[in-house]
Amino acid sequence: MADIHAYAAQDEKSPLTPFDYSSRDVRDNDVKIEILYCGVCHSDLHMARNEWKSTQYPIVPGHEIVGRIVEAGASAKKFKKGDLVGVGCMVDSCRSCSSCDEGEENYCENGFVATYNSKDRHSEAITYGGYATDIVVDQDFVLKVPENLDPAGVAPLLCAGVTTYAPLRHWKVGPGQKVGIVGLGGLGHMGVKLAHAMGAKVVLFTTSASKIEDGKRLGADEVVISKDAEQMEAQVNSFDLILNTVAAQHDLTQFIRLLKRDGHLALVGVPEHDHPAPSVAELVFKRRTVGGSLIGSIAETQEMLDFCGEHNITADIELINIDQINEAYERMLKSDVKYRFVIDNNSLRK
Amino acid sequence: MADIHAYAAQDEKSPLTPFDYSSRDVRDNDVKIEILYCGVCHSDLHMARNEWKSTQYPIVPGHEIVGRIVEAGASAKKFKKGDLVGVGCMVDSCRSCSSCDEGEENYCENGFVATYNSKDRHSEAITYGGYATDIVVDQDFVLKVPENLDPAGVAPLLCAGVTTYAPLRHWKVGPGQKVGIVGLGGLGHMGVKLAHAMGAKVVLFTTSASKIEDGKRLGADEVVISKDAEQMEAQVNSFDLILNTVAAQHDLTQFIRLLKRDGHLALVGVPEHDHPAPSVAELVFKRRTVGGSLIGSIAETQEMLDFCGEHNITADIELINIDQINEAYERMLKSDVKYRFVIDNNSLRK
Repeated sequence: MADIHAYAAQDEKSPLTPFDYSSRDVRDNDVKIEILYCGVCHSDLHMARNEWKSTQYPIVPGHEIVGRIVEAGASAKKFKKGDLVGVGCMVDSCRSCSSCDEGEENYCENGFVATYNSKDRHSEAITYGGYATDIVVDQDFVLKVPENLDPAGVAPLLCAGVTTYAPLRHWKVGPGQKVGIVGLGGLGHMGVKLAHAMGAKVVLFTTSASKIEDGKRLGADEVVISKDAEQMEAQVNSFDLILNTVAAQHDLTQFIRLLKRDGHLALVGVPEHDHPAPSVAELVFKRRTVGGSLIGSIAETQEMLDFCGEHNITADIELINIDQINEAYERMLKSDVKYRFVIDNNSLRK
Repeated sequence: MADIHAYAAQDEKSPLTPFDYSSRDVRDNDVKIEILYCGVCHSDLHMARNEWKSTQYPIVPGHEIVGRIVEAGASAKKFKKGDLVGVGCMVDSCRSCSSCDEGEENYCENGFVATYNSKDRHSEAITYGGYATDIVVDQDFVLKVPENLDPAGVAPLLCAGVTTYAPLRHWKVGPGQKVGIVGLGGLGHMGVKLAHAMGAKVVLFTTSASKIEDGKRLGADEVVISKDAEQMEAQVNSFDLILNTVAAQHDLTQFIRLLKRDGHLALVGVPEHDHPAPSVAELVFKRRTVGGSLIGSIAETQEMLDFCGEHNITADIELINIDQINEAYERMLKSDVKYRFVIDNNSLRK
């Protein structure tokens, strides 16, 4: 019985079109969620078009999910019917490796089960994501969403939010620190809001002068045009952390130079072609480090949602109906979105 | 009165030859040291030949100095005549920047005063190093040397020793950890000895099968031939820290892949041309980091010497007279030394 209405890509060339399928069984530890909103992440587009060469069709994208519990399995006691909840990039993990044992499921040594295009550990069925009316998920991978926040604006927190929150927390950002955010897109605009709320001095780096005003409105104390050598020179040796959200290939040394001794450059975007070699001397002479960070754990995601509830933070979004998704993809490719498309999943209900 | 006998390079093309000069005044906080031994660091060769384009001639190299105090200024109370002491890469720093305030003089924001080819902060004279009979140094940059160690084997600890000790300590190496050391030269052989003494499981990476036996003798639990893909594959995802002592340009991603989640690759060699771009995905998917480390602070250097005294660690050396220095340089270029040349400075006395 095809009870779930969704949008799927059937191959790498075609636009997304309606696709119905039947809900998986609600197992003892599962909850069924009626999806209210789903954010549109750039990964959705990469996967729908098989740009990472790992797509299994049909694919139902979407991993920034907010909805309400409509059913709970026998042992799924964390939630009750009607609870406002979220699901991010993961719906399961091996639960037995060192990373899972340490509560870092996002770094599961056996690979976490992704919300879409991944193999369910029990049924081996391919997972379908949030461009759908409903989803069934193990309660351990479901988050509580603060009721005081606009649920449409919460959706992007489940990926863009935690992807920036986790490295900011891991590198202990707080008052008295100076934090740079590179790029003002879906991730970057969350990075600015979160780092500001954590009490740091925030500097936004952008290549586009048109983003200065928005950057300041979102919480940046200063906006630096990264193409302007003089502006960059004034920032040398002053940052505790720079969070780089830009996935396009670019020169990292220009940002490494801006770090203080022991400062860290955290990359959260994986470019198609690796960035040019960073200067070893710029690392050695100040004991600076460069690294990466991948989304966040379930515990970090819950902590981030609670933090956003407390500080009244949501994403800046543009709400669309599902029949606008293909147009939204085209606009995303032109960075023509402030700062995240979110699907109103009611538009999927018939 | 030219009371100091030394060897100097007079220009970038000529061999080192005898050079006499007069000792600088012993200021209130200074000590005068009769030099017993001086290690020969690869930097000495780079600087003597102006390969880093910053050499001022004549240059007296040498920053791995062991000797005895022969004179102490009025307020130089830390030492007394006859004390066995060491001097490393630094003889002064600004003492007022954030790094100096935090006891990290090696990262002095205004640039530390190097033991040779640097400008004295008071007289503005160019500093002369350890290929000499004597040296005058501010007591704050002089280290106590444990009397139980062979002083000739101690000399290389002042640069090669602390350069490897500092990152091992900074990244908290100890029992239960697995540490890789890349390269078995002057730095690498100290890295193996020190990491082993800290209680870690030590794996040496070398391109040369002829170094397997020596690697094990020095303290490696395992030696991996880094050109052997199968041997490398067996090490994937298993290291807490890899200390990379190789200054020649090479692929870093092969080592990044071997790090566990949150593992760190520490570079202590600065190549003439930067290494190729490391894989961003390999960083992001395990929150791994790459960074650098520059020698060590005065406090770390003293701690390292005390640690070596306790664990009976010195460098493996080949003792030479000063008239063999040019030949030693040629042999260093062929990596034909196990593992550090040390000058017997008595050969400079007339």
